[in-house]
Amino acid sequence: MSGLAVRFRELWDEIAPIGRDAHSGGYLRYALTAPELRLREWFRAQADLRGMPVSGDGNGNLFAWWGEPPTGGPNTGDPDTGGPAGAGAVLTGSHFDSVPHGGAYDGPLGIVSALLAVDELRAAGVTPVRPVVVAAFVEEEGARFGVPCLGSRLLTGEIDADRAAGLRDAAGVSFAEALGHRPAGADPALLGRFAAFVELHVEQGRALVDADAPVAVASAIWPHGRWRFELRGEGNHAGTTRMADRRDPMLTFAFTVLAANKEARLRDAHATVGRVAVEPNATNAIPSTVTGWLDARAAAPETLDGLVEAVRAKAAERARRDGTELTVTRESATPLVTFDGGLADRLAGLLAAPVLPTGAGHDAGVLAAHLPTAMLFVRNPTGVSHSPAESATDADCAAGVVALARVLEELACH
Amino acid sequence: MSGLAVRFRELWDEIAPIGRDAHSGGYLRYALTAPELRLREWFRAQADLRGMPVSGDGNGNLFAWWGEPPTGGPNTGDPDTGGPAGAGAVLTGSHFDSVPHGGAYDGPLGIVSALLAVDELRAAGVTPVRPVVVAAFVEEEGARFGVPCLGSRLLTGEIDADRAAGLRDAAGVSFAEALGHRPAGADPALLGRFAAFVELHVEQGRALVDADAPVAVASAIWPHGRWRFELRGEGNHAGTTRMADRRDPMLTFAFTVLAANKEARLRDAHATVGRVAVEPNATNAIPSTVTGWLDARAAAPETLDGLVEAVRAKAAERARRDGTELTVTRESATPLVTFDGGLADRLAGLLAAPVLPTGAGHDAGVLAAHLPTAMLFVRNPTGVSHSPAESATDADCAAGVVALARVLEELACH
Repeated sequence: MSGLAVRFRELWDEIAPIGRDAHSGGYLRYALTAPELRLREWFRAQADLRGMPVSGDGNGNLFAWWGEPPTGGPNTGDPDTGGPAGAGAVLTGSHFDSVPHGGAYDGPLGIVSALLAVDELRAAGVTPVRPVVVAAFVEEEGARFGVPCLGSRLLTGEIDADRAAGLRDAAGVSFAEALGHRPAGADPALLGRFAAFVELHVEQGRALVDADAPVAVASAIWPHGRWRFELRGEGNHAGTTRMADRRDPMLTFAFTVLAANKEARLRDAHATVGRVAVEPNATNAIPSTVTGWLDARAAAPETLDGLVEAVRAKAAERARRDGTELTVTRESATPLVTFDGGLADRLAGLLAAPVLPTGAGHDAGVLAAHLPTAMLFVRNPTGVSHSPAESATDADCAAGVVALARVLEELACH
Repeated sequence: MSGLAVRFRELWDEIAPIGRDAHSGGYLRYALTAPELRLREWFRAQADLRGMPVSGDGNGNLFAWWGEPPTGGPNTGDPDTGGPAGAGAVLTGSHFDSVPHGGAYDGPLGIVSALLAVDELRAAGVTPVRPVVVAAFVEEEGARFGVPCLGSRLLTGEIDADRAAGLRDAAGVSFAEALGHRPAGADPALLGRFAAFVELHVEQGRALVDADAPVAVASAIWPHGRWRFELRGEGNHAGTTRMADRRDPMLTFAFTVLAANKEARLRDAHATVGRVAVEPNATNAIPSTVTGWLDARAAAPETLDGLVEAVRAKAAERARRDGTELTVTRESATPLVTFDGGLADRLAGLLAAPVLPTGAGHDAGVLAAHLPTAMLFVRNPTGVSHSPAESATDADCAAGVVALARVLEELACH
């Protein structure tokens, strides 16, 4: 094992036990709960060890500065909300919070890799000409307060501070209460001091396994959305109702599930039906209503539109045959995020790494609308994500640190 | 409208409001709860009006006697559990209890029709040479204590009295507590006094609509059962997992639903998947597990076996393609009930009525193993059952009374 892989493992083992569920092996690191607060303390201690002052933005996001420390700004006086003086800084980092029983790497890998990349540059005697800033964003998964990328949305003003303040978790605790104060909201002055953001993240699929490469550069986040397919039929007795007399919405649902899969494959897109509700959901009753939720994603908006329209048309045709009624409601839609093309090409050339799109949202997707943004992915042998089976080898994580260090050197040290 | 249809409507309207849910229009008449207790009081009052003494069997079943009254038996001393002295009695009747938000006719039609049939015979001056007994069985639906035909199973000894005593409803009340005492259990002496049982019931399908006839005679209750299909795949991220890398049990489930429908149609059998459980049941997650329950019924046991085996084989084949694991568990199985063939033919000839099988269980199905038993079905224009949409016209109900009166005359008055 390389020295760097050993150093990665040592640092990784410090946080591995925090918030781990003994039963599932997965993590319960919800934003601003005890495990995530411990990780934030660990982050501050690591920054201290490296002489990197930590500033906040009043929204729960933390920033550790290498280079020019924060010397006051719009919020001078509060050490946790003082803005930095330097401009043109290069931002990196990710988040600590997890989905329920999530994997170890989604989020923390980007922060640990950033700290080690700083170590690598220092060990090589490299001095930044622009500040390098390691961020820990709050509530990226939305698992506690329901809005993913809450911290980056607040910083960039993409969510109103009052609305964010009032978001409540399952126990009724508001985001403002968990944070200890009303979130500060958009901070254009702080944002203006960043010249670029590079987020390193474990891959959430197996494209790098196929490409036989440890690291990739992201090209885009696919447009995606959620559509609710509500199918109404006629509830009836399962024992006595002749097959020909039935209006069974479970049949229409089943056909729609298979149609969504087929239409997605035809388009190299993604379609998933992972959530169902059945009324009355009894073994001996033909359902009166079956509702399925379609999660659909594709590389291009027109592909996504075509996919959803094809699934809707097939469901509607089958509903006519089954004597059921179909109502389709779009519950959410997120447009295409294209990362800065010049930056992605530059990094891909620097690293000789493949360029890949992703179907998942990230803080980088939010920040991409505000500053040049890039993402690096580290190979995940299982391809599994949001699950304890998510993984990465220490050697690939070390390769990720090397890649991130080269990117930071390229962007901040020349 | 005929005079009998008017008399039916008058009697029917007396019980129509009892236990009706204003919102759904359906009935909440769970066994031994206030609405069902009111119906039992109404039954005793109707028997009194007709000079028919009412006896119980200590299990919650009530028997109103025309002809030879109960004069003591194994349980003499308790007027509600005293056994009748006469032998060769003809038993009719049904049950008052309903499924949640059930229809008006399922159960009560058989009791009201029996009372009116007695009136018809008396008005015609017919005198029974054997007693005619109108029964109100307890907990036929199993909607409160979980075991259908609980009253008839207790009377016949098909369920142990101690086990029945300990069955609890959703609020934790035991059957013994609801009844006020431990159920008496099997009563072979009482059972031995019945020469035949004829249950009149609303049809739970549309065969009589197609046959253009108001009344049919039952041939059999189809063998039926419940099979749990548990499908395990790999939970994963809906956004980032490539279609080719998925092991999605929802696909196997959907294919199984459509296969069950097709295989049932090929065999003139019934197959229903009305109940589903999904883990984690999240919009943006490929499920790790999908469990579907198959309700399957067919005219012959070998047809049922062939149906279930075909569905299992198709599900297993698809599971191999999807990379999922299938486990099939039989949760319950009820064998074929063939009603007394001679009796069915005799009644069909008497009534010039079609002979039909049914897919639903009834107290008559339990009693058929112990004494010659028949069922009459009354046409249901919607074919819908266990739902407020269940219906029968007053004219067809009057035709049912006439048919039942002719059957009782045939069996008890010659």
